[in-house]
Amino acid sequence: MNAPTTPHALLPQIHQRNVPPELVAALKAQFGTRCSTALAVREQHGRDESVFDVPPPAAVVFAESTADVAAAVGLAAQYRVPVIPFGVGSSLEGHLLAVQGGISIDLGRMNQIVAIHPEDLTVTVQPGVTRKQLNEALKSNGLFFPIDPGADASLGGMCATRASGTNAVRYGTMRENVLGLEVVTASGAVVRTGTRARKSAAGYDLTRLMVGSEGTLGVMTEITLKVYPLPEAISAAVCSFPSIEAAVRTTIAIIQMGVPIARVELVDAKTVRMVNAHAKLGLREEALLLMEFHGSPASVKEQAETVQEIAADHGGNAFEWASTPEERTRLWAARHNAYFAAIQSRPGCRAISTDTCVPISRLADCLLESIDEADASGIPYFLVGHVGDGNFHFGYLIDPHSAQERATAEALNLKLVQRALRMDGTCSGEHGIGLHKMDFLVAETGAGAVDMMRAIKTALDPHNIMNPGKIFAL
Amino acid sequence: MNAPTTPHALLPQIHQRNVPPELVAALKAQFGTRCSTALAVREQHGRDESVFDVPPPAAVVFAESTADVAAAVGLAAQYRVPVIPFGVGSSLEGHLLAVQGGISIDLGRMNQIVAIHPEDLTVTVQPGVTRKQLNEALKSNGLFFPIDPGADASLGGMCATRASGTNAVRYGTMRENVLGLEVVTASGAVVRTGTRARKSAAGYDLTRLMVGSEGTLGVMTEITLKVYPLPEAISAAVCSFPSIEAAVRTTIAIIQMGVPIARVELVDAKTVRMVNAHAKLGLREEALLLMEFHGSPASVKEQAETVQEIAADHGGNAFEWASTPEERTRLWAARHNAYFAAIQSRPGCRAISTDTCVPISRLADCLLESIDEADASGIPYFLVGHVGDGNFHFGYLIDPHSAQERATAEALNLKLVQRALRMDGTCSGEHGIGLHKMDFLVAETGAGAVDMMRAIKTALDPHNIMNPGKIFAL
Repeated sequence: MNAPTTPHALLPQIHQRNVPPELVAALKAQFGTRCSTALAVREQHGRDESVFDVPPPAAVVFAESTADVAAAVGLAAQYRVPVIPFGVGSSLEGHLLAVQGGISIDLGRMNQIVAIHPEDLTVTVQPGVTRKQLNEALKSNGLFFPIDPGADASLGGMCATRASGTNAVRYGTMRENVLGLEVVTASGAVVRTGTRARKSAAGYDLTRLMVGSEGTLGVMTEITLKVYPLPEAISAAVCSFPSIEAAVRTTIAIIQMGVPIARVELVDAKTVRMVNAHAKLGLREEALLLMEFHGSPASVKEQAETVQEIAADHGGNAFEWASTPEERTRLWAARHNAYFAAIQSRPGCRAISTDTCVPISRLADCLLESIDEADASGIPYFLVGHVGDGNFHFGYLIDPHSAQERATAEALNLKLVQRALRMDGTCSGEHGIGLHKMDFLVAETGAGAVDMMRAIKTALDPHNIMNPGKIFAL
Repeated sequence: MNAPTTPHALLPQIHQRNVPPELVAALKAQFGTRCSTALAVREQHGRDESVFDVPPPAAVVFAESTADVAAAVGLAAQYRVPVIPFGVGSSLEGHLLAVQGGISIDLGRMNQIVAIHPEDLTVTVQPGVTRKQLNEALKSNGLFFPIDPGADASLGGMCATRASGTNAVRYGTMRENVLGLEVVTASGAVVRTGTRARKSAAGYDLTRLMVGSEGTLGVMTEITLKVYPLPEAISAAVCSFPSIEAAVRTTIAIIQMGVPIARVELVDAKTVRMVNAHAKLGLREEALLLMEFHGSPASVKEQAETVQEIAADHGGNAFEWASTPEERTRLWAARHNAYFAAIQSRPGCRAISTDTCVPISRLADCLLESIDEADASGIPYFLVGHVGDGNFHFGYLIDPHSAQERATAEALNLKLVQRALRMDGTCSGEHGIGLHKMDFLVAETGAGAVDMMRAIKTALDPHNIMNPGKIFAL
């Protein structure tokens, strides 16, 4: 681990490549009105939830099929023009920004559920299907898909960023739940990786190489996922703690004892106040753990009892239980609304989100030191965490027009990442590298590993057209 | 999926590259007696459990450190000579054979447990540590590592082949349980992938690219793994069934209901007879399921009751239960000894093992059709299966001197693979591709995906020195 020593550059490097009018004409000829050069459309596709400001792509193609994607990429390859796949635009690290120009391929219309195989616990979807749409479709089969990033993201975007969410502590992340892919490569060819078998030792794991590659190795056009039987019983609870440390130590004990908890999420007292103000939830304004237990009725009861004992040992009290879907939704609103409640707590602000993940035994130290730093900085923030995984997010609420606030937030993020790396952790648990964490990636993994990534990228995309300038400089 | 149409070539393509005496001299100068050119040593390192016969490597280096591996690979790179990493020699698909000549690096002396972090449920080991050695070391910490291929394989070999075993249905395979690696690359550089964090979205998933790469992308010199708390309660059972179909349909129902069973293994009646003859276990000579349940005492009891009901619906009976470690060991001996019992049932024979894995709903059809074919061929065989994953192994017991028996076995394997691919399955659940399944890999994944693998290989190993000629022709 090489500690990064300077804050990340506050603006991305922009080297716009030329998009020749011949390419735009060819796209319009191929796609008609499904190729747009309207500024509003381009601007909508040239940003995400990050704070960066970059010129938009030159054109947006609305793909409706794998053949569309292959045709668009094929044309872009011919003119050596960058291609940026777009799902719903909810990524956080600048993944969608056209830092080298190029065209955006919007996959939102590729939103068909291709096949549900309840008997095999697999589903095949197009990349524009969102996680909520998928769960609606699965419900009548008694199934669900557990990965739930904050936004109602597209499955393609979730694959691209190796997303996780609140259920990862039990069900894993996209890494563990994608069985196979159809991918349009940089040359416009269509390749399949993986099968519907649950495991495989057949050659390089191209599926997992694509998952988390942030659009830099190809465009995913079909995704086969593991799904799970809806648990026979589900019970959720919220528990207040006298301190963040007590909540975190409770979490550590739960994980170390091997309780198969489905969700265990931290919301700090500041953030509970924001959520209460936003949605009048009337929660106790203390550090909270939100928990959920899945299993047979007896197993859920047993897990809940064990966790109550552990929490009581750490001063946790005021357990509030929810067993009906409606009660659970109300409880989880506190977690799911945290981001928007926080944004609204400071009108006009934007959030710079951190994403470190550390081994569970280091979680309390990592969090508490970082809270002290954030408090000392005076920057308002929210704090939530997938603490069962050792992953948490500060959202520093900055005035986007204040260079000083931005610099302060980036300096806090840098110190947090340095701390997480010292503790054998990672700079990104689930948001990805994008534009924002490229220096952190080098610090985390070393130049040699990043050079390996670059060599793979160059081998699979020799003209560097697939979402260039993300993950590493190239 | 492109169905393979011809049986795999019965002998590997051999293109021995020159190993210059200067390289051997340099290795001897560097490693002294830890570099051997004795024929017996070379022969021992030039074979595995496969049926292939190939000239041995020119020299064997016994590495004791990452620096040793880096030095040996660096010298081999200088002379552009192949390097084949060696663990315990238990692979099944010809992975260790020096089809292009070169040197073997024996990692058996790199057998230190580097660090156990019980509080984080992680362990870091050198690649020569075997799975049994690891579990011995973990036991006193109340932990275990679940992946258990038949042999007492090395963790390095298990990473290289993406191994799994009997616990994969609950705990996943090496794919899901390796957190990070130290790797010596083809140039002799040392690179780290991953951290001790449970999840990460930091750049390309080099860890999973290395896992299953069969030594073709680098030599793993340190491995960080997830480990698990020893379950509070463990109970194992054997249950006899009137037919294979009844046993398989029981398994399918268990999986589809979401019972968190830890192990569910099939042994067919023929194989039970072999095991009884070998070890006098006195088991009923019918199709068996061997099962194991992990959890709290109440959860184990509940799982066992559910499974007994399902089994009874399919005519399963004569449950025999084992709760003490000694009883469990006796029960599992039937499964673990199947390979050796089968080999001994036909003196002088060798086993050609199949390794298909299909979606669980197709398991009964895939198995039953393949059994009919095997019975019709007259070749003796054993049959065992990690049926909870849809993975099973026929071991065709052939006279290695009979070209006809070999051809018959390969023809059976071909038909089985074709069937599995038609059913959305894979040619290899856990043994890897090696020399033996290269044609099957192309049939399974298509030439485009194999070309992607080849491009990655060429980018990371431009002189093709890392275990060349495995997975794909190059």
